[in-house]
Amino acid sequence: MASSRNSVSKTDPKLVLSHKFAEDEVTYSERDVAIYALGVGACGADAVDTKELHYVYHRDGQPFIKVLPTFVCLYPFKKSNGLGLVDVPGLHYDTKLLLHGQQYIEVYRSIPSSGTVVNKASIAGLHDKGKAAIVELETTSYLKETGEILCMNRSTVFLRGAGGFSDSSKPYSYTAYPANQIFRFSIPKSEPTVVYEDRTQNSQALLYRLSGDYNPLHSDPSIAQIAGFASLSLSFTCASYVY
Amino acid sequence: MASSRNSVSKTDPKLVLSHKFAEDEVTYSERDVAIYALGVGACGADAVDTKELHYVYHRDGQPFIKVLPTFVCLYPFKKSNGLGLVDVPGLHYDTKLLLHGQQYIEVYRSIPSSGTVVNKASIAGLHDKGKAAIVELETTSYLKETGEILCMNRSTVFLRGAGGFSDSSKPYSYTAYPANQIFRFSIPKSEPTVVYEDRTQNSQALLYRLSGDYNPLHSDPSIAQIAGFASLSLSFTCASYVY
Repeated sequence: MASSRNSVSKTDPKLVLSHKFAEDEVTYSERDVAIYALGVGACGADAVDTKELHYVYHRDGQPFIKVLPTFVCLYPFKKSNGLGLVDVPGLHYDTKLLLHGQQYIEVYRSIPSSGTVVNKASIAGLHDKGKAAIVELETTSYLKETGEILCMNRSTVFLRGAGGFSDSSKPYSYTAYPANQIFRFSIPKSEPTVVYEDRTQNSQALLYRLSGDYNPLHSDPSIAQIAGFASLSLSFTCASYVY
Repeated sequence: MASSRNSVSKTDPKLVLSHKFAEDEVTYSERDVAIYALGVGACGADAVDTKELHYVYHRDGQPFIKVLPTFVCLYPFKKSNGLGLVDVPGLHYDTKLLLHGQQYIEVYRSIPSSGTVVNKASIAGLHDKGKAAIVELETTSYLKETGEILCMNRSTVFLRGAGGFSDSSKPYSYTAYPANQIFRFSIPKSEPTVVYEDRTQNSQALLYRLSGDYNPLHSDPSIAQIAGFASLSLSFTCASYVY
């Protein structure tokens, strides 16, 4: 269970890994798809940018809008953002100190602009990083209507203050998937091939949050401060290298 | 029925005024309330402005967020924005030339941050303005749960190209409510007591639209152009005078 920062309870790997999540469903509309696109900055610099407008509006009707591939990251949000992890026996952490780390996605077919998906989740990784614990939550989503597989999310959740549950000379590390499944790259020392700079809008964190990421880091100035941020947190980091 | 701009059909006042609208329901969540607030510019200049943040976020939970009084204008949108008027017998207009004019609201009790309202609508005014017709749609909304009256909207819809259906020397004008019910003020010649200037964000029209005002003026550059606007349309006009 989630606990306060002062708790002495420690993460119990065996209990954590034996947890079985109940299946859950997520239903969304074209409006949700458009709100997400605006929340991550579509049309923020130019409201009539044709390419970006396609993610928000289509003159033949909202069902024809395009879906950003990263929209699928919202499917497991109830769990990966901590709300689903608070019930995992053996996992003790302060929800205010949770951070969303890496997000790995595989998309197997075109993403519908509305519909219902069924999520099947499991814990695919658990690591003791000393001060922090890292949990990797793997969620496979299926189209409810046909049962077809749509995508897989692997969300890395960084739980500050929840580490130190194993021998520091040989820290606990468990991974349920083959090491070669993920493209692990190291950042080259050369300059990026492409550099793109953008500015998030003032209220963008507040809008982004309404797509389902209700971590108060995005909306509560005092909690953002406790977590070590100067203002409401919203950042996207991406570097492009062409090999 | 709505018709193309080239149609020679004329507005038939008798048919229009005899129309009975079916009751309809609108259900909304705290998320919708927050999306509306962001769409009209809350926190647009300062994401951590405490007063404005209350319309978007509350640390005790979303049910505690404040509701902007103008949120109730969304209740009759399906009708006032033309989608409900297209089925009114005797009313002929081009949906692309519809404009939302004056919006008069009366709010009788505090507006819940989520819930279902029942709308009862009627046509409270019809006027021949020569080139244009003006329709006043009156919608009274009730809380579904208790049946209590919540608010009344009177939406003035300006239908360009739909006028000229009466003798121009004595143009048709019908109003179902007493003239003294509305505070009709004339703009004083003195300077306003308070002046406040704000700037809408680039993508704000696109977000505002997702609160239910799907008039393509807010999202389609080419339709905005046909309607005579240089870009996606979103404007708020307000002048304050203290007497």
